[in-house]
Amino acid sequence: MDNGRENNADREMGLQDEVIKKLEDKEELSVERIFENKEVPSWRKQLTMRAFAVSFVLSVMFCFIVMKLNLTTGIIPSLNVSAGLLGFFFVKTWTKVLEKSGMLKQPFTRQENTVIQTCVVASSGIAFSGGFGSYLFGMSERVAKQSAEAKYGLDYKNPAIGWMISFLFVVSFLGLFSVLPLQKIMIIDFKLTYPSGTATAYLINSFHTPEGAKLAKKQVRELGKFFSFSFVWGFFQWFFTAADDCGFSNFPTFGLKAYKYKFFFDFSATYVGVGMICPHIINVSVLVGGILSWGILWPLIETRKGDWYSADLDPHSLQGLQGYKVFIGIAMILGDGLYNFFKVLRQTLAGLFYKFQLRNANMQIPVVEDSFRVRNSLSYDDQRRSQLFLKDQIPTWFAIGGYFALAAVSTATLPLIFHQLKWYYIIVIYIFAPTLAFCNAFGCGLTDWSLASTYGKLAIFTIGAWAGASHGGVLAGLAACGVMMNIVSTASDLMQDFKTGYLTMASPYSMFVSQVVGTAMGCVISPCVFWIFYKAFPDLGIPTSAYPAPFATMYYNMAKLGVEGFSALPKECLKLCYGFFAASIVINLIRDALGKKRSWFIPLPMAMAIPFYLGSYFAIDMCVGSLILFVWQKINRAKADAFGPAVASGLICGDGIWTLPSSILALVGVKPPICMKFLSRATNTKVDKYLGS
Amino acid sequence: MDNGRENNADREMGLQDEVIKKLEDKEELSVERIFENKEVPSWRKQLTMRAFAVSFVLSVMFCFIVMKLNLTTGIIPSLNVSAGLLGFFFVKTWTKVLEKSGMLKQPFTRQENTVIQTCVVASSGIAFSGGFGSYLFGMSERVAKQSAEAKYGLDYKNPAIGWMISFLFVVSFLGLFSVLPLQKIMIIDFKLTYPSGTATAYLINSFHTPEGAKLAKKQVRELGKFFSFSFVWGFFQWFFTAADDCGFSNFPTFGLKAYKYKFFFDFSATYVGVGMICPHIINVSVLVGGILSWGILWPLIETRKGDWYSADLDPHSLQGLQGYKVFIGIAMILGDGLYNFFKVLRQTLAGLFYKFQLRNANMQIPVVEDSFRVRNSLSYDDQRRSQLFLKDQIPTWFAIGGYFALAAVSTATLPLIFHQLKWYYIIVIYIFAPTLAFCNAFGCGLTDWSLASTYGKLAIFTIGAWAGASHGGVLAGLAACGVMMNIVSTASDLMQDFKTGYLTMASPYSMFVSQVVGTAMGCVISPCVFWIFYKAFPDLGIPTSAYPAPFATMYYNMAKLGVEGFSALPKECLKLCYGFFAASIVINLIRDALGKKRSWFIPLPMAMAIPFYLGSYFAIDMCVGSLILFVWQKINRAKADAFGPAVASGLICGDGIWTLPSSILALVGVKPPICMKFLSRATNTKVDKYLGS
Repeated sequence: MDNGRENNADREMGLQDEVIKKLEDKEELSVERIFENKEVPSWRKQLTMRAFAVSFVLSVMFCFIVMKLNLTTGIIPSLNVSAGLLGFFFVKTWTKVLEKSGMLKQPFTRQENTVIQTCVVASSGIAFSGGFGSYLFGMSERVAKQSAEAKYGLDYKNPAIGWMISFLFVVSFLGLFSVLPLQKIMIIDFKLTYPSGTATAYLINSFHTPEGAKLAKKQVRELGKFFSFSFVWGFFQWFFTAADDCGFSNFPTFGLKAYKYKFFFDFSATYVGVGMICPHIINVSVLVGGILSWGILWPLIETRKGDWYSADLDPHSLQGLQGYKVFIGIAMILGDGLYNFFKVLRQTLAGLFYKFQLRNANMQIPVVEDSFRVRNSLSYDDQRRSQLFLKDQIPTWFAIGGYFALAAVSTATLPLIFHQLKWYYIIVIYIFAPTLAFCNAFGCGLTDWSLASTYGKLAIFTIGAWAGASHGGVLAGLAACGVMMNIVSTASDLMQDFKTGYLTMASPYSMFVSQVVGTAMGCVISPCVFWIFYKAFPDLGIPTSAYPAPFATMYYNMAKLGVEGFSALPKECLKLCYGFFAASIVINLIRDALGKKRSWFIPLPMAMAIPFYLGSYFAIDMCVGSLILFVWQKINRAKADAFGPAVASGLICGDGIWTLPSSILALVGVKPPICMKFLSRATNTKVDKYLGS
Repeated sequence: MDNGRENNADREMGLQDEVIKKLEDKEELSVERIFENKEVPSWRKQLTMRAFAVSFVLSVMFCFIVMKLNLTTGIIPSLNVSAGLLGFFFVKTWTKVLEKSGMLKQPFTRQENTVIQTCVVASSGIAFSGGFGSYLFGMSERVAKQSAEAKYGLDYKNPAIGWMISFLFVVSFLGLFSVLPLQKIMIIDFKLTYPSGTATAYLINSFHTPEGAKLAKKQVRELGKFFSFSFVWGFFQWFFTAADDCGFSNFPTFGLKAYKYKFFFDFSATYVGVGMICPHIINVSVLVGGILSWGILWPLIETRKGDWYSADLDPHSLQGLQGYKVFIGIAMILGDGLYNFFKVLRQTLAGLFYKFQLRNANMQIPVVEDSFRVRNSLSYDDQRRSQLFLKDQIPTWFAIGGYFALAAVSTATLPLIFHQLKWYYIIVIYIFAPTLAFCNAFGCGLTDWSLASTYGKLAIFTIGAWAGASHGGVLAGLAACGVMMNIVSTASDLMQDFKTGYLTMASPYSMFVSQVVGTAMGCVISPCVFWIFYKAFPDLGIPTSAYPAPFATMYYNMAKLGVEGFSALPKECLKLCYGFFAASIVINLIRDALGKKRSWFIPLPMAMAIPFYLGSYFAIDMCVGSLILFVWQKINRAKADAFGPAVASGLICGDGIWTLPSSILALVGVKPPICMKFLSRATNTKVDKYLGS
């Protein structure tokens, strides 16, 4: 999930660039002039019951989708557009109905829309930062058992709904308070871009103009169409999956040999949609990674069977081929993460230095990085927005007090949940956390690149090594990762939302409340949804199942690596890891050296690493999505740009929502009736003979 | 195939009505004025080498398609539109290339286009009237063995390429000569409509106007797109059909229980295309028939197992359930055939009487049935066309001489091929044949309804009964059916083509020559293509295989019924047959009583009978095609009407042509590598355990 989240930046930026350019081209005059006649409701009125009701429904839906993505490949595309569209659609329908019955008390405003958006993003963000596909599930016995040769006995903590909810409640709100005092500096003084937040704001603003509402309606219709299709398709597929290796998701599209090496199209509407949302280069990167690993590397390593690794190992054993897959993947991810950490850190520090210089000089000219070309520092829009934004400032004492209170509670409770995580580790984390949270929020404002999972990995290695293998370092590291990731991730999300709120004239108060409510929702919904998956699919986390949860294995092994050192690796694996770690950095260097325009054909190491463990099947889905979008753009560029994201969202949401009934069916014990099986001709003859006799 | 051919009339009529209306609406003035400046080439120049070369290519292609349809369900849609389009496309490309290289000696004229059309229709007509899916293959041991309880030993004649070609050459040309002397009367004096022929002529005329050529080009592009898709899809499917019950064509779309009763979507592009070409009512009729038989009737009869029929019979035995399927189907087909025979006969006689009266009164006013509203009996178009048509009259002595010569050869040779068919049977057939051929050609001119297969069945029963069971009556009947069908079918085809030629100013000479060449091609190509199928698919004709050849079984059993009487039927089957025979007539009566407009919802008995034997899977394909067209028409009527037939033709042709490489692969022994198998959950568990151990 690292990957998806982080790389979405590219796409979002592209989207935002386009939106901004389009809006600027069209209307040299200000956005706020259009809305001049519309009264801005007070912050209390922005927080309506209906907004939270809709948010709750959407939160549950997106939670299912994100959870499914978490547990299948870990690639999560930006669902902001669909959240925006669906939120608008629900409330608009609601208000329309009320209006007709004469019961409408309050019209639907863009501020309310922003509240929904914020709440949903906060809530479904927990499904990601809660680590159900990474650190949290990585603690489970099931994942730990896959590397059965642990030296100091198995250290695990199986998921249980009670401790998961408590854990999330204890750690998720800290991030909100950690950066609160800096909102004015970041939004008003620094005028940070926050590309995703800006794009969302433009989307919401456009929805509330008459023309935009018309387009939105059409987009919603398109979304609905593909939502239904995707849902029905998921339902249809279900009937043929009586056992693990049955059904469309095991369709050997390119033959059985290719299937064995995980090259096949698995007919997943979700990943076709993901491919349509992700930029082409990500899809191609994933495919290149798949070809490199499963097409070349693993078959080569397999020829060393019996030499590099024992021939009679369990196929899932990390001492065997599986170990190469996991650790080489980790090496690439770490290389990419480290590179980007230093890159963003450098940019952050440089930007910070520059901004402070400007501020000290009492100037408010936007910095070069801002794609927001404000022609006049006192533009009408800015004036109006700043005025409203500053009116509802959250007091600093509240933020600092809240942080300390929560940190205290957290320090007291967390060791009760994870006895390996000592109270002094937590205090250390909470001392450094605000700085890192600020760094992340600032970096994200500049580049749209949230490094939450990189900071999480940092915590794994430092706290893990500190605790040491004999004192449950693996679990301590994973738990520390959770604490760190939650703070850092929610901090940047909050600031992102403040930017959206600023641009849509929503009050910082309502943004904060919405974020708090959303986070609270997420802390309850996400564990529940995960629990449903966990109970419904008993093979969750098994590499060959429909839900392999690849990052759970990766995180567990990172923690193990941090604690036990390189002794866990099979023969020659370390050399390969060094090589891929270096390659990852070199590729990034080349990308940056060539510049964004000229490096379009160079794959992203982070995206390349995911199929190392999983295989290329989802890469093929994504490339199909890419291809569809590409052809569509060739045929009708304008239409593809306007409806592509809606179609993709429909595909993702429909299939994602199908997992809800599908897991309920699994829970109540209804099993699919048919197995669509793929047998080689020879095996088929055998089977026919067996069934005939 | 009866069905398809005959019912196509409806569709063709619809098409023709539209074409004519459109053309008449658009231009009150004459078609020939548009072509006034274009010189009409002499008849020798109309018969170019390139035309015959293109005809040959298209003949092979359509022969594969018709053969596939023959051997799967027997429903053959009209391929005239695709033949017209593809012929135009090939020669146009050809002349374009030559024109650019400066080597073009003769421009592409509509007369040449008509020659191609005629040749292709004549040649692919043989694939139908040659009886490869009915009487001819019905003689084979494989079909005969399915009703193993023959009383007088098995009488069969297995297909062999030598005698099939000789047989076709000996019988196929007689029809051409039998009605030749009447061409002036039918075309000029009676002005018979020949809806299909007229529609084709309008199509060809329109292709040669600049605007029409542009539309044709677009249609060809659409056809090409779906052709490729359908071909690739056929290719893809092939990989998963390692055994008989594998692959998409055995996909239990609605569950295994429904699959057992042959309700499933078998992903056949051909039948989706067929459904798009056939009128909605035919598709619905087929589905209704399927539901009635496999959904209600057979399950009910199955409950009588052990009572009505022995429980330990072979499932394919005609003494068991299979017998009910075959004979009830035959009863409906015979009822429908008989009804239409008398209906068309009555219309023919009435029309004939009326026309002769008019002719005797020296008047040339068109009769009421003519949808051709000629406002002036001496219109410019008619003048020009008649003049040309009468110039190139084929002399009567040639026709009569040819008929006698061919009849003599035929009478001498046929008993050598089928020793059961005595020379005096043949003479009797040849005495009555010209009358029947004229009746059919005349009836077809009025209603577009060729009764060839009905006349064939007449021959089965009369000659079969005459020969008697002990003297090989079954084979004699089937052979006589072939003789009769070929004469009657080619006679109406020829007259149809004369009409097309008349309307496109092609000479009767060139039409005749083209028909002769086309027939000769067909006599060689069709048996060869059938031979490829026969050799490539060793289970051809087996009810559960991919090529069940339903009408082969039906024809064989009709012949048996004619020879042996009703003793062949299982218990209670005769009563059911009487019931369905009567129902078939009653439904037809109701249809006619209500009139064409108000009877749109009443199914056609002939179409209902086909799934009685085969099951509903192709009915579901066809209904999918119908649905696609319906939705398309709702969205964009004009586009659907312009491109629907092209898309459908593409789907049919692509899949049809795939059978060429697929049968070659089968011949050289390349087998598909994978079996896509559908197992119930319980069976799957068993199989997994078996494979695991």
